[in-house]
Amino acid sequence: MTINENTTQDIGITGVRIQPLAIFPTPDGAVLHMLRPGAALFSDFGEGFGEIYFSEVLSGHVKAWKRHAHQTQHFAVPVGKIKIVLFDDREHSTTRGVLRELLLGRPDHYDLLRIPVNVWYGFTAIGDTSALICNCADIPHDPKEGITLPANDPSIPYRW
Amino acid sequence: MTINENTTQDIGITGVRIQPLAIFPTPDGAVLHMLRPGAALFSDFGEGFGEIYFSEVLSGHVKAWKRHAHQTQHFAVPVGKIKIVLFDDREHSTTRGVLRELLLGRPDHYDLLRIPVNVWYGFTAIGDTSALICNCADIPHDPKEGITLPANDPSIPYRW
Repeated sequence: MTINENTTQDIGITGVRIQPLAIFPTPDGAVLHMLRPGAALFSDFGEGFGEIYFSEVLSGHVKAWKRHAHQTQHFAVPVGKIKIVLFDDREHSTTRGVLRELLLGRPDHYDLLRIPVNVWYGFTAIGDTSALICNCADIPHDPKEGITLPANDPSIPYRW
Repeated sequence: MTINENTTQDIGITGVRIQPLAIFPTPDGAVLHMLRPGAALFSDFGEGFGEIYFSEVLSGHVKAWKRHAHQTQHFAVPVGKIKIVLFDDREHSTTRGVLRELLLGRPDHYDLLRIPVNVWYGFTAIGDTSALICNCADIPHDPKEGITLPANDPSIPYRW
């Protein structure tokens, strides 16, 4: 399968984009792209990048819910697999009310996921091993611009 | 132990620096810093960043040797453990001839390693599991500026 990092896929929530990422296998372990000039989602970093960090998710554990007022997320999952759930309750969004479940992880879902501001997200590691998310964010972490809800909050129509 | 990301450690090869990285444990999996404004090695990205990619290393496998003419590497190992070997044969370096072995990986060696241009490096995954290196490089990958040697090349005084 040819990977075209210049393209993104729309999954039905405005501003959420999925960009395929290339994997280059070698006998000693693969090389995996994350973010580079020329790739479709690189355009989010016209004013520089904010922060790169990792979020480990233990097998079966849930990290939910969160949204950001100012920070755009770019997730790739080079190790393990996650199910990520996105929910749009933005007041003026044409896709308000839409909820999507996605898989991220190798080999079939090694993608870069763009999560825009004010869209709720949460994720869980599926399978027997921990998963690792790498997030390249457009602005540095600022606890004041992140909002969280409990995983079982009734305002989001999803049960983990 | 307090992690101070504003500091770097000199390991005896000019231009190689090690910056501690913070880990924030949670019951569902840790959050791990990689690169953010204010951290000591962020100054390498004054003109923007080049590329972020991952290099997986299978248990016991070796990836060696490589050096770059223009690209400065910044390695963190969020999964597994690697032993990395650095060798300086730069003609005008005051540390010419110095070879260093380092460990990278959690929990005790979760650090950001800066590898300057023209220093040879190679690595192997130690322990029973694959390791994952995340590299944030200051310029994008360009095959023309990277030079490789076989792992057993006699010009580098190290046997894997």
